[in-house]
Amino acid sequence: MKINVVKNVMEASDAMADENRRRMDAAGVVAINVLSAPGSGKTTLLEKTIPLLAPRYRCAVLVGDLQTTRDAERLGDLGAPITQINTGRGCHLSPAEVAEGLDTLELDKIDLLFIENVGNMVCPAAFDLGEHFRAVLLSTPEGDDKVAKYPTLFQPADVILLTKIDLLDVLEYDSQRVRDDLSKLNTRAPLIECCPLSGAGLEEWAGWLRERFSEK
Amino acid sequence: MKINVVKNVMEASDAMADENRRRMDAAGVVAINVLSAPGSGKTTLLEKTIPLLAPRYRCAVLVGDLQTTRDAERLGDLGAPITQINTGRGCHLSPAEVAEGLDTLELDKIDLLFIENVGNMVCPAAFDLGEHFRAVLLSTPEGDDKVAKYPTLFQPADVILLTKIDLLDVLEYDSQRVRDDLSKLNTRAPLIECCPLSGAGLEEWAGWLRERFSEK
Repeated sequence: MKINVVKNVMEASDAMADENRRRMDAAGVVAINVLSAPGSGKTTLLEKTIPLLAPRYRCAVLVGDLQTTRDAERLGDLGAPITQINTGRGCHLSPAEVAEGLDTLELDKIDLLFIENVGNMVCPAAFDLGEHFRAVLLSTPEGDDKVAKYPTLFQPADVILLTKIDLLDVLEYDSQRVRDDLSKLNTRAPLIECCPLSGAGLEEWAGWLRERFSEK
Repeated sequence: MKINVVKNVMEASDAMADENRRRMDAAGVVAINVLSAPGSGKTTLLEKTIPLLAPRYRCAVLVGDLQTTRDAERLGDLGAPITQINTGRGCHLSPAEVAEGLDTLELDKIDLLFIENVGNMVCPAAFDLGEHFRAVLLSTPEGDDKVAKYPTLFQPADVILLTKIDLLDVLEYDSQRVRDDLSKLNTRAPLIECCPLSGAGLEEWAGWLRERFSEK
């Protein structure tokens, strides 16, 4: 009985994600679900990425957080539509919350929609939101052991960004260990080394995004 | 109906936590639930803390992780009893898992039990495991905005450790912002600035632990 309940809940969630995807497909929107631990640089990445893509690609952001509108405020100056979704105690964005977020946007005027998930390496990985691609950030100060410890996050990633590489000089960090762990788990996603704050490596990321849009 | 189910699940969870606490009280064990985002330095903190407290205080550790036994292996050389609990896809330790962990330990030979939770700023905060105190780590590279964004984690903390302060020189970080946010949320818990890797600040933390044990 318990298994059936859980299965039905996940089926309902996946059906709503498919509906989100259908709405975005109809409007020509490509959606990227952006996942990471808290403080890996998701908001900074988006702050720097949107100007790199504009004006050719019109971007918008749905920002998930338990509390506060700080991330939306940070992104507010970019001229792109931003919607904050506060999850309260919710540990991940749900497809229903994303559907409400989509209601706030003019989808016909958007090319790329970034969905900045709640900072959490576990729960968000289990939920399809209707995105087309998943970008996972891993920041160097989190340690070089995280790929093996959080396989459910890294296995379905379409692109992985190793962020805060400017700190490599002051950290004991073995990038090769990350690559070795990824080679056992996910050989499909490119690993992009970058520093969102300085902008290093972001042209490679922007290029990856442009390719996803042209494939669409 | 749905609310009742959730309530019953939480009541069962809390009852099991109480039973864990009763077992530890009977054996004179003081338990610390250690919570933080992934990579904030929980394992390094325990690696450095246990030798500081030995031999006067006999320590043991229950280590929660989705996968791998890497943390338990790191702690294995300390001569203290270590039990790894792999949660699979579970985003937090549960009181039932902790009860199984307690079965593996000789509680009469333990003074301080550290329960290293799964690296996650959201879900672990919602579950009493039977601990006596909660220690929450916040590492400087995660950013100075995390207290306001994760109030459910910081509000019930008994002590907060600001870790990786050696990186303050190379980060844009406003410690006062952390203190200001804490002043609205939790004025009870001391904030200990430390660097587990170098050992800076750990004597203050060890002193806090010794006081909790003597109060017991």
